[in-house]
Amino acid sequence: MSASKTAITPRREDDFPEWYQQVIRAADMAENSDVRGCMVIKPWGYGLWEAIQRQLDAKFKATGHKNAYFPLFIPLSYLEKEATHVEGFAKECAVVTHHRLEVGADGKMRPAPSAELTEPLVVRPTSETIIGATYAKWVQSYRDLPILINQWANVVRWEMRPRLFLRTAEFLWQEGHTAHETSEEAIAETETMLGVYETFAREHLAIPVFTGEKSESERFPGAVTTLCIEAMVQDRKAIQAGTSHFLGQNFAEASGIRFQSREGQQETAWTTSWGVSTRLIGTLIMAHADDDGMILPPRVALTHVVILPVTPKPDTRDAVLEAAEALATELRKQPFHGEPIVVEVDRRDLGGGVKNWEWIKKGVPVRIEIGPRDLAQGTAAVARRDRTPKEKEFLPTADLPHQLPGLLQAIQDALYQRALTHREEHTRRIDTKDDFYAFFTPKNREKPEIHGGFALSHWCTSPECEEEIKRDLKVTIRCIPREIGEEAGECIVCAAPSRRRVVWAKSY
Amino acid sequence: MSASKTAITPRREDDFPEWYQQVIRAADMAENSDVRGCMVIKPWGYGLWEAIQRQLDAKFKATGHKNAYFPLFIPLSYLEKEATHVEGFAKECAVVTHHRLEVGADGKMRPAPSAELTEPLVVRPTSETIIGATYAKWVQSYRDLPILINQWANVVRWEMRPRLFLRTAEFLWQEGHTAHETSEEAIAETETMLGVYETFAREHLAIPVFTGEKSESERFPGAVTTLCIEAMVQDRKAIQAGTSHFLGQNFAEASGIRFQSREGQQETAWTTSWGVSTRLIGTLIMAHADDDGMILPPRVALTHVVILPVTPKPDTRDAVLEAAEALATELRKQPFHGEPIVVEVDRRDLGGGVKNWEWIKKGVPVRIEIGPRDLAQGTAAVARRDRTPKEKEFLPTADLPHQLPGLLQAIQDALYQRALTHREEHTRRIDTKDDFYAFFTPKNREKPEIHGGFALSHWCTSPECEEEIKRDLKVTIRCIPREIGEEAGECIVCAAPSRRRVVWAKSY
Repeated sequence: MSASKTAITPRREDDFPEWYQQVIRAADMAENSDVRGCMVIKPWGYGLWEAIQRQLDAKFKATGHKNAYFPLFIPLSYLEKEATHVEGFAKECAVVTHHRLEVGADGKMRPAPSAELTEPLVVRPTSETIIGATYAKWVQSYRDLPILINQWANVVRWEMRPRLFLRTAEFLWQEGHTAHETSEEAIAETETMLGVYETFAREHLAIPVFTGEKSESERFPGAVTTLCIEAMVQDRKAIQAGTSHFLGQNFAEASGIRFQSREGQQETAWTTSWGVSTRLIGTLIMAHADDDGMILPPRVALTHVVILPVTPKPDTRDAVLEAAEALATELRKQPFHGEPIVVEVDRRDLGGGVKNWEWIKKGVPVRIEIGPRDLAQGTAAVARRDRTPKEKEFLPTADLPHQLPGLLQAIQDALYQRALTHREEHTRRIDTKDDFYAFFTPKNREKPEIHGGFALSHWCTSPECEEEIKRDLKVTIRCIPREIGEEAGECIVCAAPSRRRVVWAKSY
Repeated sequence: MSASKTAITPRREDDFPEWYQQVIRAADMAENSDVRGCMVIKPWGYGLWEAIQRQLDAKFKATGHKNAYFPLFIPLSYLEKEATHVEGFAKECAVVTHHRLEVGADGKMRPAPSAELTEPLVVRPTSETIIGATYAKWVQSYRDLPILINQWANVVRWEMRPRLFLRTAEFLWQEGHTAHETSEEAIAETETMLGVYETFAREHLAIPVFTGEKSESERFPGAVTTLCIEAMVQDRKAIQAGTSHFLGQNFAEASGIRFQSREGQQETAWTTSWGVSTRLIGTLIMAHADDDGMILPPRVALTHVVILPVTPKPDTRDAVLEAAEALATELRKQPFHGEPIVVEVDRRDLGGGVKNWEWIKKGVPVRIEIGPRDLAQGTAAVARRDRTPKEKEFLPTADLPHQLPGLLQAIQDALYQRALTHREEHTRRIDTKDDFYAFFTPKNREKPEIHGGFALSHWCTSPECEEEIKRDLKVTIRCIPREIGEEAGECIVCAAPSRRRVVWAKSY
C-alpha cells in the first residue's frame, strides 16, 4: 500500500457518511441484518460494548445504583398514561397484537386470529411507564425512597432512515430510573449522572463533550428538564451521546408513585431517568477513526496490543514465535487502569502486511513486530495506532513491559487532545445572523458532508427563533452549555436581549 | 421467633409450590409484572443473574467463544424455513404486526392500520433461524469456520401457566450458536458445552446433575440430538437446567450455510446451539432454599458476609460500628475463587432480630454479629446459613480474615453434599412396572406436591412405551444418563430387551 493510499475508501473528506460505513465494515464491527433497521453487532463491535458496559456499570454501582430487569412489553394503556410521552413515541412503536401463529388457508403461517391480544403490547421504546407502575407498588413510605435502579436492555424505536449504531430500530442501552422524596434530591441525581457520563466520555472514550440543558423542543417527551452530553465528531456535526432527565412528578403522578412523608402526608414522588446506548460506539468511530480505519482509545480497547511475529525463514520461526509469546506473557502482567493489559499474538500464516493492515483497520492501540533481526538485537518495532501506519520505533524488548502502561495512556491522552483541538478549531463565537448563516452553509459544494461546526451564539429563549434556524439551516440548539458562563448579548435571530450563548450545530 | 416456627409459611413439605413463591418474595428476588407472564427481576435476583452471567461468560470465552448480538425480531418467513422448528414454537410466538400507533375514532391509541407490516415479525423465541441467515453470509470457505459465538439476550415464549424464573413469557438467557466444517467437530462442541454446564452447576451452583441425551419426544425442535443437564430439586421433581443441541445440517441447509471445503467442494456446514436461562435461578432456589428462605451458594452469592453490629447502648455504639467496619475492611482483602469477598455492614437502625432474619431470608452465606461484649473479648459470633438460624460460633475476630475463604468453601461443599445426598436418597433402580407406578403415586394424599424422585429404569427406546408412562403418570424420560453405564435389562413398560437404564421423573 503506497503512502498516499489509505486503507479506507472513500476518505473522510470525500464522503463522510460512506467512510463511516466502510470503517465499520473494515473493522468488522457490525452489519445490517435482513430485519429492517435492526443491526447485527459482530464480536469486535460487541466487545467494545462489553467494555463500555463493564466500566459504566462500575460507575453506576459506585454511585449507589443496582441493576434490575423489567418487562420488554408495555401495555398500550400504560404508555397512554403520560400524554406528552405517548405522543412522542407513538410514531415509532413496534406493536405486538398476537400471541400465536397458525397455518392459514394458503398453507402459510400467519398470526392466529383467535390469539389476538385484548390489549396490544408495545415493545418498550423506553421504560418510564412500566417501571413507574412497578415503583408505585414498591413505595408506601418515605422509608422506601430513594429507589436507585438501572437496567441494561434492548429497546425498539421504529426507524425510517437507519444507520449502524447511530440510529437503529433496535438498540442496546442502559436506562436508570430513580424515585425520590424531594425535587432537590431528584435534580441532584440527574446532575450526578450527567457527571458520570461526562467523565466517562472524557476519560474512557477520550471524547470532550459539552454538558447542559436541552431547549424545550429537544426535551425528552414527558420530562421537565433534559440534560445531555454533546460531542463534536469529525464532520463537525454534533452527536447527543447521553441524556439525564428530571421528570418532576409527571410520571410519578401518571403511575401513582405516592408515599407517606416524614410529616405523615400523602405525597407524590419525584423521578429521574438517564441513559446511554450503542450510539456511543457510533460516536466513538466518528470521533476517532481515520482514513485507515478504526482507532480504539486504549481504555475501551478489547485488545491493547497485538504482537506480529515476522517469520520469513523456517529455521528462525520457532525462536521468533517463542519470543513473541514470552513478550506477551510479560506484557499481560502489567495493569492498565486496574485491568490486565490484553495482548494478542497473531500467529496466523498470512503475509505480514495483510496482518498489519487488518489490525490497523480494527484500531488496536499498539502493534509490536518481532522478527529474527529484532531477536538478535533485543529490540522490537513498536507502532502506535494514533500515528501514521509506517511510523515505528525500535525499542529494547526488555523495557516494553514497564513502558507499556505509559504508552497506552499517552495514546489515550493524544486522542483526547486531538478531539479537543478539532472541536476548538471548529467552535466559533458568532454574533451576527449573516456570519451564522455563512458558517452553516457549505463553502465547497464538492464536500457537502463537512459542516460548519459548533456556533456559540446568543438566543433569546423563544421557540420561534429556534424554529426559524432549524427550518432555514437544519441547525438546532444542542444544549445550553455549562462550560460557558453567562454573558449579556443579543439573540442571533431576533436581536432581543439574551443572557447566554448556546451551542448550535447540525446533528445526528 | 420460636424454634418451631419458620420464616417461610408454608413449609416445603406442606405446600412446595407456594413455599417457592414465598421464598422469592421473602428474599425480594422477583415479582410478577402487570404484563401477563412477564416478571420483574428485582436487584437481589438480578445480582444473582449477574454473577451467573459473569462466571459462565468467562467459561465461554475460555473455550474460544466470543459474544455478539443479533436482532430481537425474526421475519416469519425465516422461522418457516425449518419445518419442525416453526411447528415447535408457533403456539408460543409473540407477533409484531404494526410499527406505529395512532389515535383512533374513540380518541384512544391503537395500532395504525396504515402501518401494518407486510411481513409479521416474531419476537425471537430462540435465534437459530436469524443467526443461521447471518452465518450464511459470513461463510464462503472452510477458512471461515468454525464460527463460535454466544449471545446474551431476552427471548419470548408465550406462556399460559407462568411461574417466576421457571417458566415466564419473557426470560433472559444465553444462546451459543456455532458452525463447523464437520459433523465430528460440531458434536465435540456440543459435548464441550454440556461439560461447561455440568461443571458450572456442580462447582458454582452446588447442584449435582445427570447429563445425557434427550429422547426424541423431548428434543429441541429441529435438532438431531439434544443433550441436557437435569437436576433434582427438593420436591424430587426434575428441572432441565441447560441444553446443548447438535443441529446436524438441518438449520444450515434451511439457511444456506454453504462453504467451499478443503477439497474444493461446495458443502453444507454443521451447526450447534446451547443455552441456559434465568430458569437456573429457579433451580437454585428449589435446590437449596429451606423453610427459613433462600440459601445462596457462596460462589454465586452477591454478598458473602453480612456484619451485624449489635449496639444496645449509645456509649459503645461508635466503637462497635468502628470495629465492624474495620473487620469488613480486612475481610474484603481476602479472595474467594479469584474475586474479592463481598462484605456488607448493616448499619440500619432496626432491631437486631429484624435485620438478622432479613439476611437469613435473603440467603447470605455468613452472618457475623459484633457487640460490646465481643469487642471486649476480641470475638465475634459467626453463623452459617446452611446451619439452623440459632447456631453460632464465637471466634476470635483476628482469625476471621484468614478463616473466611475456607468457611465459604465449606458452606459451598456442604450445600453440594446435601443436594447430592437428597438426590441419592430419592433415586431408585426400579425393575418392575408395579414398583414404578407405586414410586410415582403419592402415598400421602396430604402432600401431593412431594413426588417419588428419579427412577432409573430400563426402556426399550420405543416412543409408545414412553408415551404410555407420560399419559398414566405425567412422568417423562429426563435423559439417557452418561453417569450410568450400559446394562442389559427389560423395558419397564413392555419387557422388551433394553441396553440401559434411563432417568424417569416428573419435571418442571
